[in-house]
Amino acid sequence: MTIIERLQELNIELPNPKAGGVYSPAVQSGKYIYVSGQLPVQSGKLLNPGKLGDNVSTEEGYAAARICAINALGAVNTLLGSLENLRVIKSVGYVSATTDYKEHPAVVNGASELLKDLFGDINGVGARVAFGVASLPAGSSVEFELLLEKI
Amino acid sequence: MTIIERLQELNIELPNPKAGGVYSPAVQSGKYIYVSGQLPVQSGKLLNPGKLGDNVSTEEGYAAARICAINALGAVNTLLGSLENLRVIKSVGYVSATTDYKEHPAVVNGASELLKDLFGDINGVGARVAFGVASLPAGSSVEFELLLEKI
Amino acid sequence: MTIIERLQELNIELPNPKAGGVYSPAVQSGKYIYVSGQLPVQSGKLLNPGKLGDNVSTEEGYAAARICAINALGAVNTLLGSLENLRVIKSVGYVSATTDYKEHPAVVNGASELLKDLFGDINGVGARVAFGVASLPAGSSVEFELLLEKI
Repeated sequence: MTIIERLQELNIELPNPKAGGVYSPAVQSGKYIYVSGQLPVQSGKLLNPGKLGDNVSTEEGYAAARICAINALGAVNTLLGSLENLRVIKSVGYVSATTDYKEHPAVVNGASELLKDLFGDINGVGARVAFGVASLPAGSSVEFELLLEKI
Repeated sequence: MTIIERLQELNIELPNPKAGGVYSPAVQSGKYIYVSGQLPVQSGKLLNPGKLGDNVSTEEGYAAARICAINALGAVNTLLGSLENLRVIKSVGYVSATTDYKEHPAVVNGASELLKDLFGDINGVGARVAFGVASLPAGSSVEFELLLEKI
Repeated sequence: MTIIERLQELNIELPNPKAGGVYSPAVQSGKYIYVSGQLPVQSGKLLNPGKLGDNVSTEEGYAAARICAINALGAVNTLLGSLENLRVIKSVGYVSATTDYKEHPAVVNGASELLKDLFGDINGVGARVAFGVASLPAGSSVEFELLLEKI
């Protein structure tokens, strides 16, 4: 089963993210693919905007992070025309959070668990950073950045 | 026209940034040049300090981000002795912002549009992340990090 | 003297960090080693939790950043079985801070000075970013991310 077939099985449709500024959604350099920070935009609408620890629950943040990862994969698929033979090297999860919120990793797992499901226990799990930011573009609750390697 | 000549045309003088801690302004590893987070220091003074959404307007943040990019290029020029044959791979824009600020990409465009002007539509536009931080060194409103590739 | 011997001389015991989510503490890609964001966990306890500019002093943050760096080295040693022939390329210091805190670089120096001591003035000093975040996992005051190159 290809990654695209697995996505279809999960009823996930890959979007074609547009840049919201002067940047590319994803660029390739040698064997590396750098994906720009992705917001949880779904069908043109931001999923679960706001702040963790305030109006957005950890479960809602998890769902938002999953959409961010789908958008990251959409950007990669637009760039490469395929999602095969890729390895997750590093990701960063930016969580818009109150100053006393503590569950950032549980939010970012929404992106990481999808990547692990798709690319496997070895190639789907990379290094990661998760932390709480003061605010995100458009009032988003989560932003997700990804570095992949062609293998 | 070289990048240096284009900078002169724009009346931009390249600085020679000093590190404000135990780090190098820029390091080369293989074909990659990693540039440390740059503040909008101009002639020894921090431009437009404070916070977006509070005392710093989006236009003032844009101007600060542009100075950050100039300082990043100064660090690269000091390291390599040239700004030719470079490609923008990834940048990160750190915007000191209130918890409800939403225009981070418009601020970071101040850095990205200069890079695009200098390096062109292909090599001057890479992946990017922009987000709001709680605070920055010295009370800066913007910090900018850059990853370049020698081509 | 090997790095491990120098660590013993400094009475530093290398831990074997566990991931607090769906990620690897460190991964290798070609000659690069990407280390996940490390918290200042020491003997299972978070050192100096809280916020810089509030309940955590710059000196306490410095001590926390040093433990983060030790944990990063523990993750690398677990992955590679050695700490020899490594170069610091880039690090990121995430400082949980109030909105008016300004001394982030002095905090992150706690990690950077240890790396410089261990790997030397050339190979131990890379590019760096330091900034203030709204909150960190588990209420940590500091998080530290590291990119190394095998030389």
